[in-house]
Amino acid sequence: MEEIKNFFKRDNFSNLLGIELLEIKPGYARTKLEIKHHHLNGFRAVHGGVIFTLADLACAAASNAEGQLTVLVSASINYIKSGKGGTLFAEAQKICSNAKLSSFEITISDDKGEKIASFQGLAYHKKSTLEEVIRSHPN
Amino acid sequence: MEEIKNFFKRDNFSNLLGIELLEIKPGYARTKLEIKHHHLNGFRAVHGGVIFTLADLACAAASNAEGQLTVLVSASINYIKSGKGGTLFAEAQKICSNAKLSSFEITISDDKGEKIASFQGLAYHKKSTLEEVIRSHPN
Amino acid sequence: MEEIKNFFKRDNFSNLLGIELLEIKPGYARTKLEIKHHHLNGFRAVHGGVIFTLADLACAAASNAEGQLTVLVSASINYIKSGKGGTLFAEAQKICSNAKLSSFEITISDDKGEKIASFQGLAYHKKSTLEEVIRSHPN
Amino acid sequence: MEEIKNFFKRDNFSNLLGIELLEIKPGYARTKLEIKHHHLNGFRAVHGGVIFTLADLACAAASNAEGQLTVLVSASINYIKSGKGGTLFAEAQKICSNAKLSSFEITISDDKGEKIASFQGLAYHKKSTLEEVIRSHPN
Repeated sequence: MEEIKNFFKRDNFSNLLGIELLEIKPGYARTKLEIKHHHLNGFRAVHGGVIFTLADLACAAASNAEGQLTVLVSASINYIKSGKGGTLFAEAQKICSNAKLSSFEITISDDKGEKIASFQGLAYHKKSTLEEVIRSHPN
Repeated sequence: MEEIKNFFKRDNFSNLLGIELLEIKPGYARTKLEIKHHHLNGFRAVHGGVIFTLADLACAAASNAEGQLTVLVSASINYIKSGKGGTLFAEAQKICSNAKLSSFEITISDDKGEKIASFQGLAYHKKSTLEEVIRSHPN
Repeated sequence: MEEIKNFFKRDNFSNLLGIELLEIKPGYARTKLEIKHHHLNGFRAVHGGVIFTLADLACAAASNAEGQLTVLVSASINYIKSGKGGTLFAEAQKICSNAKLSSFEITISDDKGEKIASFQGLAYHKKSTLEEVIRSHPN
Repeated sequence: MEEIKNFFKRDNFSNLLGIELLEIKPGYARTKLEIKHHHLNGFRAVHGGVIFTLADLACAAASNAEGQLTVLVSASINYIKSGKGGTLFAEAQKICSNAKLSSFEITISDDKGEKIASFQGLAYHKKSTLEEVIRSHPN
C-alpha cells in the first residue's frame, strides 16, 4: 500500500490543490482537503471542481489499490450543500466489479461530519500495473 | 407508510413489469422483481431499462416516504454484471439533502446477494403533498 | 443495417413497451414510442423508466450499428419536462470514442419537437459480433 | 454579457488553473485551458478534475448568462481520450429547461478539434440575481 500511496504523491494536480490521501486499502480510500481562498468560486463557495477532484482522488486510490492499473472512465456527482470553508473529506468504497470495470460510491463530508455531495465512479481496469507506469514515466 | 405504499400500487409501469415494493420508510426503500422472458433484451440478458426502473421505484418510494412530494430530476447508473434471470432487488438509501434536493444511492443485487449495478438519484422536493396528487388524479 | 434493425426486433422489453426503431446508421439512431396508460407512473406522467428505455434503445442501436457488439456500461439522465401523453422520440448521436468505449448523447423530445430529457451513455465494445450473439441465442 | 464575464473573473479556482472564458451568451459558452505540468495526474495525463472544471466553468457561464443566478446540482462526465498536453476547449449548450432546472451538454476537445470527453450538467435556477451575489460578496 505504501508504494501506491507514494504513487499518488506524484499527482501534480492534487498537490496543487493540497489534497491529502489519508487512508488506502483495496476497494477503499479516504482523502482530505483544507479549504483555502483559492478553492472558492465566484459565489465564494467551494468550487464544484474542487469537490469533484477530492472525490476523484479517493476513487482513483481505492481502485488502484486493488493491484491493477485502473482509470476513471465515467463519473457523476450530486451537489447538495455548498462547502464554505473548513476541511472536507471524501470516502470511496467499491460497490461491485467484473473483470474489466468497477463501480465506486464516494461520499463527501465537511468537518462536522455532514454529507455535502455524492459521487459515483466507474473505473476501467487496464492491463499494465502501476509499477510499469511509474517505470515508463519516472518524473 | 401504508398510504404511500398504496400510492405506488397506482404506478402502472411498475405494475406492467411486476415490481414489488418490499419495504418503505423515510429515506429508505427496497423493491423486488422476478425476471421473466419479457424483461430481457436482444442479448437475452435483463434489459438495462428494467434494472433502471427497479432502482427508480426504490428511489421514488424512499424519497416520497419523507412526507413531501418528490420527483426524480437526475439519475446515473453503472451496469457491472448482467442479470440473466432469477430475482433482482434494489435498495435505496438517502445520502444527503437540503430544502429542495435529496441525493440517493441505490444498489441492485441478484438473488445470491451479488451486487450487479449501482444507481445514483437526485430527487426534487415539490410543494404539494402526495395526498393532494392522489386527490387531483383519482384514477 | 437491416440485420441490426432485425436484431433489435428480438428485444423483448422494448417490444413490451411498444418502442419502434425508426432509423439506424453507424453512430446514430432514432426511436419512437406512442404513450399508453401502462407507461404512466402514480402521478400520471410518463414513467422515468419508460423515457430511460426509449433513450437506451436509441443508444444501443447507434452503438451496435458500428459493427462490433457493444453494451451500455454507464448512463445518466436529466428529466426536465414530464411527458403526459402523445408520442415521444429519442435521438442518439455518437460524440467520441476510443478502441474500447464510445460516448453518446441522446435527446428525448415530445411530438411538438420540445426536448423533455437528456441522456448520456457510455458503451463498451465487446470482442464478439452481433451475428455471433444471434447464433448463440437463436430464440 | 460583459458583467457576467467579469463575474467569472472572480472565480478563484478557475484562475488558479488558468481557465479562460472565450465566449458567453444565453445558453452557450466556451472555455479554454493551456495545459501545464501542474494539470497532470500521476500517469502524466491531464487530471480528470481539470477536464471536469474546464467543462463546469463553461456550463456555469452558459447557465448564468440567462440572467438568473444558477448553480450546478448534478453532473456526469465520460472520459474517452486522455489529454496529454497542448490546449483544451469546452463548449456548453443548453438542451432543455423548465422554471427551476436547465440541462446542458458540454463537449471537451483538444487543439486538433478531437473530442476527448463529454459532460452533462443540471443547473438549478435560484431566486437571486448575479448582481445581488456580487453586492453581498464584494471580494
